[in-house]
Amino acid sequence: MRLKPPIIILNFKTHKESTGQQAERLAMIAEDVSKDTGVTVAIAAQPTDIFRLSNKVKIPILAQHVDAEEPGNHTGHITVHAIKEAGGVGTLLNHSEKKLLLNDISKIISMLKAEGMLSVLCTDTPSTSISGAIFKPDFLAVEAPELIGTGISVSKAKPEIITKTIELIRKLSVNVPVLCGAGITDETDVSKAIKLGVDGVLLTTAFVKANDPYNVLLSMCHAALEHYKK
Amino acid sequence: MRLKPPIIILNFKTHKESTGQQAERLAMIAEDVSKDTGVTVAIAAQPTDIFRLSNKVKIPILAQHVDAEEPGNHTGHITVHAIKEAGGVGTLLNHSEKKLLLNDISKIISMLKAEGMLSVLCTDTPSTSISGAIFKPDFLAVEAPELIGTGISVSKAKPEIITKTIELIRKLSVNVPVLCGAGITDETDVSKAIKLGVDGVLLTTAFVKANDPYNVLLSMCHAALEHYKK
Amino acid sequence: MRLKPPIIILNFKTHKESTGQQAERLAMIAEDVSKDTGVTVAIAAQPTDIFRLSNKVKIPILAQHVDAEEPGNHTGHITVHAIKEAGGVGTLLNHSEKKLLLNDISKIISMLKAEGMLSVLCTDTPSTSISGAIFKPDFLAVEAPELIGTGISVSKAKPEIITKTIELIRKLSVNVPVLCGAGITDETDVSKAIKLGVDGVLLTTAFVKANDPYNVLLSMCHAALEHYKK
Amino acid sequence: MRLKPPIIILNFKTHKESTGQQAERLAMIAEDVSKDTGVTVAIAAQPTDIFRLSNKVKIPILAQHVDAEEPGNHTGHITVHAIKEAGGVGTLLNHSEKKLLLNDISKIISMLKAEGMLSVLCTDTPSTSISGAIFKPDFLAVEAPELIGTGISVSKAKPEIITKTIELIRKLSVNVPVLCGAGITDETDVSKAIKLGVDGVLLTTAFVKANDPYNVLLSMCHAALEHYKK
Repeated sequence: MRLKPPIIILNFKTHKESTGQQAERLAMIAEDVSKDTGVTVAIAAQPTDIFRLSNKVKIPILAQHVDAEEPGNHTGHITVHAIKEAGGVGTLLNHSEKKLLLNDISKIISMLKAEGMLSVLCTDTPSTSISGAIFKPDFLAVEAPELIGTGISVSKAKPEIITKTIELIRKLSVNVPVLCGAGITDETDVSKAIKLGVDGVLLTTAFVKANDPYNVLLSMCHAALEHYKK
Repeated sequence: MRLKPPIIILNFKTHKESTGQQAERLAMIAEDVSKDTGVTVAIAAQPTDIFRLSNKVKIPILAQHVDAEEPGNHTGHITVHAIKEAGGVGTLLNHSEKKLLLNDISKIISMLKAEGMLSVLCTDTPSTSISGAIFKPDFLAVEAPELIGTGISVSKAKPEIITKTIELIRKLSVNVPVLCGAGITDETDVSKAIKLGVDGVLLTTAFVKANDPYNVLLSMCHAALEHYKK
Repeated sequence: MRLKPPIIILNFKTHKESTGQQAERLAMIAEDVSKDTGVTVAIAAQPTDIFRLSNKVKIPILAQHVDAEEPGNHTGHITVHAIKEAGGVGTLLNHSEKKLLLNDISKIISMLKAEGMLSVLCTDTPSTSISGAIFKPDFLAVEAPELIGTGISVSKAKPEIITKTIELIRKLSVNVPVLCGAGITDETDVSKAIKLGVDGVLLTTAFVKANDPYNVLLSMCHAALEHYKK
Repeated sequence: MRLKPPIIILNFKTHKESTGQQAERLAMIAEDVSKDTGVTVAIAAQPTDIFRLSNKVKIPILAQHVDAEEPGNHTGHITVHAIKEAGGVGTLLNHSEKKLLLNDISKIISMLKAEGMLSVLCTDTPSTSISGAIFKPDFLAVEAPELIGTGISVSKAKPEIITKTIELIRKLSVNVPVLCGAGITDETDVSKAIKLGVDGVLLTTAFVKANDPYNVLLSMCHAALEHYKK
C-alpha cells in the first residue's frame, strides 16, 4: 500500500462527533472531498470504528495506535493482525497522546512492514524525528504537543521544527516523507505547511467539529494541491 | 442490561483464531449453543471486532478493556462511548493481561454505570476481589494469573481463592456475583466451579482453539445448568 | 513501628528546595519542631535522600513510592528492602503523582507489613479510600488531586471528601486512621482538618518553600495539638 | 566527566546482595580492583544507595534509571538533579527491565548533558542502538534481553548484534562508544566482547553473587586491558 502525496490525515481521536455513526458520516464526507479533488485523504479511526468505516468508504482507514504484541494471550491489546482483519491499512504510532517505548516503536514498524501495512510515526522534535526515521516508517508526522488542540498551527508558530526535521532527514539520507500536525485550522495553515516542504498534514478539530466539514476539507485539499510539488 | 446466570464468558483475547472473520465464525457457534441450551454466553471481543460481532449475533458482546478517558483529545484510547456505539454492552476491566490503576477502576465502573453498561472486574486474589467489590461492578471475575493458559483450572488447583472470595463478599454485604476463570478446560471444570458457588466462568483456549468448539461449549453449558442453583 | 497522632507528613516531592543538602536542612528544622511540640513529624523523602536523612535526624523517614518487585533482576526499581536498608520506616504509595495498579497496591501493602514497615496509602475519593482500606494500610491519606499545589485546602474546599471517607470507614469496621492533604497552607487549614476527624495532614509547598519553615510548621503543630482528641 | 575505556559497569540491580550495607562492601571491592588494575569500574546503584556509595568510594556511581521530570511536584519520581545531589555522575537509561518512551529518552539525555552528567543508553538491537545513537549519549550499552541473567554471554551467543551495531554507528558517523552486556560470566566473555570492538561491558550476577568477587572482577579487568586497543 502506498499513499500518493499530498496527503491529509484526519485523526478522529475519541471525540463524540467522530465516533460510530457520526464517524461514518464524516468518513463519507472525507471520501467525497477526496474524489472531488484527487487529494489523498486518510482517516485515523478508533479501533472500534475501523471495520465499520473500511466497509463504508474506499479511502484509507488507519488505526490511531497499535500495541507491540503478537496475536496470543494478550487480553485488551490491539494487534497489527486485528487492524488488518478489520480493514485498516496501517496505523499512527507514538502519538503524543499515546506514546510508545523506543523498543516497541522498532518492533511495531517491523511488524507493520511484514504485513505490508503503513506506519505513520508521530514525533515531537527534530531529534526524535531523526531517531524515529532510522526505523524507516512510511511517514513521519511531526507535531509540537504544546500546539495540539490550540488552533495555532505548527507551520505558523514553530516552522523551524518542520524545516529542521526535513533538513536533518536529508542529511541522514533516509528517504522518509514528513507530515506535520498540531493546530492546523484552515487552508492557510495547509499552504504554509506544504510550502515548508511536507508531504501532507494531520488534523482533527478543524474538520471533526466543523459546521461545514465538506467545505473546510475542500479548501484544505485545494491549498495542498496548489502548493505541492513533486 | 442484565445477564441471567449461569454465564459463560468467552474471552477471545487476541488469538488469530478469534480475530475478524474467524471471530464471526466462533461467535455464531457460541450463539447457537446459547440458543440450544438457554445458558447466557457472552463474548469479550477485541475492540476491532465489537461492531462486526454485535451486528452478526444477538448474544452479548463485551470489550476486553476500556480506558478511563472521556471522549475528547485522546488519540489511541478506547472509550466507554465508543464501545457502546459499536454495539458492546459492557467490558472486562483490569484483566491480568491489562491491569488498571485503582483510581481508574473506580472511574471506569462509574462511567459504565452512567451508560447502563456492564462491568466485569477481573481480580486475582480474595483481597483484591473484596477491594474491587467496593465499587459494585456487575461481576467480579476471579482469575489466578499463574493458571491462565495452563489448562489447570482454578476450581481444581486453587478452589480456596473462589470460596474465600465468595465468603468475604457475603461478609461485606455487597451483592456482587462472582465468576471464575483461568484454566477452565472442560465440563468438569465448569461443574466444579459452579459447585463452589460462582455464577459463571470465563475461558479462552478451550473454546477458541477447539477442534469442535460447538460441542466443547455445549458440554460446558449443560454442566453449568445442571449444577447452578439460584 | 507506630506513629502517634496527630501526625504531620512533609512530602518533599522532587523540589530543588527539598533535595540533597537542602533536604537535610529542612529535615533538621522539622526535627526541631517535632521535639519542641511533641507532635509526630515525618518526612516523605526522595529515594536518593532516605539514607542521608535517616542518618541525620531521628524523626521517621518514609519513601514517596515503592515498586511491587521483590529484590532481584529489576534494574531501576525501588524495593521495600532497599528502603528499609536505607533507614526508611515505610512509604507513601499510590500518590496521585505516582499512581499504582490495584494488584500492586495489594502486594506492596503485604510486603510492607511483612517487613514491619508503615504503609500510607494515598487515595482521591471516598470510594477509592474504602476500596484501599480493605488492604488495611497503616494510614489512608486522602487528597483531592485537583487541589494539590493550589493553596486551597481540601478541609476548606471539599470537607465532604474527608467526612464521607471517615464515615464509610467506620461503617466498614476496619480501623484505618485517615490523614488528609492537598492545599494545606497554614494552621487554620490544619485546625479545620483535625476538627473534621483526621489523625493528621500531608503537605509540601507551605513548608518546603517557606521563608521561615520552622515557624510555619510550629504553628501547624500547635494547631494540630490543640484540636486533636484521642 | 569522562570515563576512560576499557570500562566495566557493575549493574547492582535490586539484589539483596548488592543493597545497602552489602552494596558498600561490594563497592569497596570494586574500587580495590579498579585501583589495582587501572581499569575504569563504575557501579550502577539503586537510588537509595547512590549517596551512601558515593561517600564511601571514589569510583564513579551511576543511577540505574532516571525519570524525565524536572524538579517540582513529582512525588515518587527520580530526577537528574537528585542523582547529582546524591553524588551520582550519570545514569543508565532504558534498561530492558525499565524501558523508556522515545520522547523521554530524548529529554533525559538533554537534561543529563545540561548537568554535565553521563548517559549510558541501553538498547536491545542494532536498530534501536542506531536510533538511540542519534541522541548522542555518552555510551550505548547493547544487551540482548533474552540473554540477561542466563550466564550465556551476548559475545558468544549473538556477537552479530554487537558487530552490526558498531558497523552501523560508524556509517552514521556519530561517535558513540559501545558497551555490551547480558550473560557476561567470566574473563573469556570479556575478552570476546572487547575483541568484537566494544569499549567495555556491563554485568551483574557474575560479580554480585560471586563467592570471590575481587578475583572474578580482577580477571575480567585483566582480560579487558589485554585486548583493548585505543
